Amino acid sequence: MIRISILYPNVSGGRFDFDYYLSKHMPRSIELLGSHPGFRGVTVEQGIGGTEPGSLPKYVAACFYTFDVLESFLSAFMPHAAELQGDMPRYTDIQPEIQFNEILISRPA
Amino acid sequence: MIRISILYPNVSGGRFDFDYYLSKHMPRSIELLGSHPGFRGVTVEQGIGGTEPGSLPKYVAACFYTFDVLESFLSAFMPHAAELQGDMPRYTDIQPEIQFNEILISRPA
Repeated sequence: MIRISILYPNVSGGRFDFDYYLSKHMPRSIELLGSHPGFRGVTVEQGIGGTEPGSLPKYVAACFYTFDVLESFLSAFMPHAAELQGDMPRYTDIQPEIQFNEILISRPA
Repeated sequence: MIRISILYPNVSGGRFDFDYYLSKHMPRSIELLGSHPGFRGVTVEQGIGGTEPGSLPKYVAACFYTFDVLESFLSAFMPHAAELQGDMPRYTDIQPEIQFNEILISRPA
């Protein structure tokens, strides 16, 4: 399985509207991508801190989409890329760091 | 729920021994932390690329531990911190970026 990570760096003065992101952007994103048969899950996180007491997290927010194979993600995402990317300025001015990952170990409790 | 992300930057000349990491380090880490009642899961990933064709991933490897609350992770990890951190030079010379995250959305397929 593969995972796409979308990490929003905690840049000084950066804007990130969690209300819009959680109530509008991500539900629409999940509606569009989650119906693909290769979809395996999605997680959205908010950074709460680093390991030093009181330190800021390196990333203020992160989204992880899991799909069976990379081609599934691309075929799910590309038809909606313009809409989803066009919606980004409504919740952030931060440029996300996006990469593709292969899942090597996945263990539930 | 909270998630601890341990990201290994893809630094030039950095060493990362996936064989040791997957066959020794992570199984031992999961043995030690996975028995805690607050443990909710763990995922290990290998970065395979960025969004530009042929580009390198920003992170060569990543580990994500999910726990019910941060205190559970700390009480699971701290007694074994010396052993697990002491094992790191056996698989990498890369300094990981570690942060704590709150899970806001988690949706399976």
